[in-house]
Amino acid sequence: MKATSTQWSQAMGLAAPIVNAPMGGVAGGALAAAVSRAGGLGMIGIGSAGSADRLHTELRHVSDLVDRPFGIGLISWAVAEQPRLLEAALAARPALLSVSFGDDWAWVRRAHDAGCVTATQVADVDGAQRAADAGVDVLVTRGAEAGGHGQPRVGTLPLLVEVLDRVAVPVLAAGGIASGRGLAAALAAGASGGWLGTAFAACPESTLPDAAAEVMLAARNTDTVTTRVFDIALGYPWPPTIPERVLRNAFTDSWHGRESELAADTEAVTELRAAIAADDYRLAPVNVGQGVSELTAIEPAARVIQRLCDEAREVGQQ
Amino acid sequence: MKATSTQWSQAMGLAAPIVNAPMGGVAGGALAAAVSRAGGLGMIGIGSAGSADRLHTELRHVSDLVDRPFGIGLISWAVAEQPRLLEAALAARPALLSVSFGDDWAWVRRAHDAGCVTATQVADVDGAQRAADAGVDVLVTRGAEAGGHGQPRVGTLPLLVEVLDRVAVPVLAAGGIASGRGLAAALAAGASGGWLGTAFAACPESTLPDAAAEVMLAARNTDTVTTRVFDIALGYPWPPTIPERVLRNAFTDSWHGRESELAADTEAVTELRAAIAADDYRLAPVNVGQGVSELTAIEPAARVIQRLCDEAREVGQQ
Repeated sequence: MKATSTQWSQAMGLAAPIVNAPMGGVAGGALAAAVSRAGGLGMIGIGSAGSADRLHTELRHVSDLVDRPFGIGLISWAVAEQPRLLEAALAARPALLSVSFGDDWAWVRRAHDAGCVTATQVADVDGAQRAADAGVDVLVTRGAEAGGHGQPRVGTLPLLVEVLDRVAVPVLAAGGIASGRGLAAALAAGASGGWLGTAFAACPESTLPDAAAEVMLAARNTDTVTTRVFDIALGYPWPPTIPERVLRNAFTDSWHGRESELAADTEAVTELRAAIAADDYRLAPVNVGQGVSELTAIEPAARVIQRLCDEAREVGQQ
Repeated sequence: MKATSTQWSQAMGLAAPIVNAPMGGVAGGALAAAVSRAGGLGMIGIGSAGSADRLHTELRHVSDLVDRPFGIGLISWAVAEQPRLLEAALAARPALLSVSFGDDWAWVRRAHDAGCVTATQVADVDGAQRAADAGVDVLVTRGAEAGGHGQPRVGTLPLLVEVLDRVAVPVLAAGGIASGRGLAAALAAGASGGWLGTAFAACPESTLPDAAAEVMLAARNTDTVTTRVFDIALGYPWPPTIPERVLRNAFTDSWHGRESELAADTEAVTELRAAIAADDYRLAPVNVGQGVSELTAIEPAARVIQRLCDEAREVGQQ
C-alpha cells in the first residue's frame, strides 16, 4: 500500500485515505455505506435544510456496516437551530463528525465525549488555526477549486501546503481532486487523505438525480462558476461570504453579476423552481468542482476508490 | 535524488527540476544566472515592453555559465511586433525558449531549427492540446493561483492533472508552488518540474525593487486579487482575457470593479505613476501568486532551490 495509506487512515481503520465530502442532498446513507465498504470513510451529509429525522432515515443504510467506520457531516447553523441534530448524530456513533461554517466550537467537546474524531472545513490558515485551537482533530483544507459551498479564498495546493506547514493537525485535502494523480499529489505534500465530492457525486449510490450525473459527465473544469445566484433565488440561508461552485448554465449566464435584479424577479425564481422539479439542468444547479474533467464514467463508489488508489500508486516521476 | 529529479530535468542537464518563471521586469539575467548555477533552469524574461537591446543587456549575466543551461521567455505579441527579438533570443542559444499568450506557432519551428527546446504557458486542456499539436516540447500548466498575467481558468492541481492525463507532452507545474511540499506534490502527480515565479521574485538577484520584496514577505495568500486595473490605468497591451494576480492594495481596493471609471480618471493614473516611480506599494503593483505565504525570508536563488529540494525529499506520508 505504498502511496495510498497514511498514519491517519490507518488510525481510522481505513484501507484507503479517501473520505467522501458530506454533500447535502447528495451524500446520503447509501453513498456513505458504499464508500465505507470499499475501505474509505463514508460520510452522510445533512445540509442546511436537513433534520434529525432525515439523518435517521439515512443512517439505516450504514446500520449493518459492523466493523467499518462511517462519518456524519453537518452545517453549523443547522446544529445551532436544531439541538436534536447533534444529539442524533452523536447517538449514531460515527467515527468522524464534521461540523463546518461556524465559529461556535461547543460541538467539539461533545463529540470528543462521545468518542468521535472531529473535523471541520477551513478556507485559510487563520481558520485552520482557530479550528486547531478549538481542539478539532483533522482539518479539511477546502481549496477554491472545490464544488458546492465554501469560501473561495486560496487554491487547493497552496492552501494545503500552508496549513501543513503552520498547523500541527492532520489535514485532508479538498478541492479539484478526483483522480489518482490528484490524490498522489496531496499525499506527497503531506496530506493525511483526500476529501472528495465531485468524484463521488455521480456514483449510482449518491442521491443526485441521474440526469444531473449525466450533465456532470459531459462537463469540463472550465465550465464552472462560483456564484450566489441559486442561494439568492431560492432563499437559502448561506451567507454572502460562502458562495457555491456550480456548473455554468443558462441561469448562471443570465443572473451572475445581476444578483440585485434577480432578488426582485419572481418570474425567474418560478422558472428556476420548475426546472429543479423537472431535473432540467439548463436552469437548475449542479454543484461541481474543478475535478469534474476527471469524471469519465458513472462508476460505483467502490470502483472510484479502487481506481484512485491504483492510479495513485502508478503515477509520479521516479 | 529520490523525489527531486525527473526524466525531463535529467535530459535538460539540471540538478533540480525547477525553472524560474520568466517574469518581465523581474527575471533578468542575474536571476537566471543564479538559478542555473544552482542547478535549476534560469530563465530571462522579456515582457511586453521588452526589446532585443534589453535582452542583449540581460544576456551578459549568463555569458559565463559555460556548461549550465539557461532559457529565455518571451511574449507572443512582442515577438510579432519585433522580429529582432526572436532572432536575438535564438542567437543566444538558450536551452529552452518559451513564447506565451499567442496562437501563431511559427516560432516553434525556428526554435527547433536553432536547437532549442520549446515551452509555452497553457491555461486549460484545449490550449495544452493546441500547443502540443504545434510541436511545443514542454507545457507550462499555469493554474489560477499564479502571480502576474495569465488566464485564471483552472486551479493548479486540477489543471496539471488533466493535462498530464490527456496530453502526451512533459508538463511543468506553475501556480502557487513556492515550497518543497508544493514541488513534491507536482512531481508526485507526474509533473516534470516546477515553474516558480513568486518563490524567486524576492531573491536579491531579481530586479524587483527591495521595497517590493519586503512587501511580498509580509503578504499572505489571502491578500491577492486577479485584476486588470493596472493594465487599464497604465495602458499596457494585455488583453481583457489575461488579467494579472497582484497584491491587494489601496489602488486595487479603489478601482477593482470600477474599471470603466478608472479609464477616464487621469488624476488616479498620475498618482499611480508617481507611486510606481517612488516604489510606493500602497498604490504601485506587486505581482504575486498564492505561494506568497511560503516566503519567509529574502534568500538567494541558490538557497531557495536547495531548500525546495531538501523539503521535497523530506515531506509526504509514507
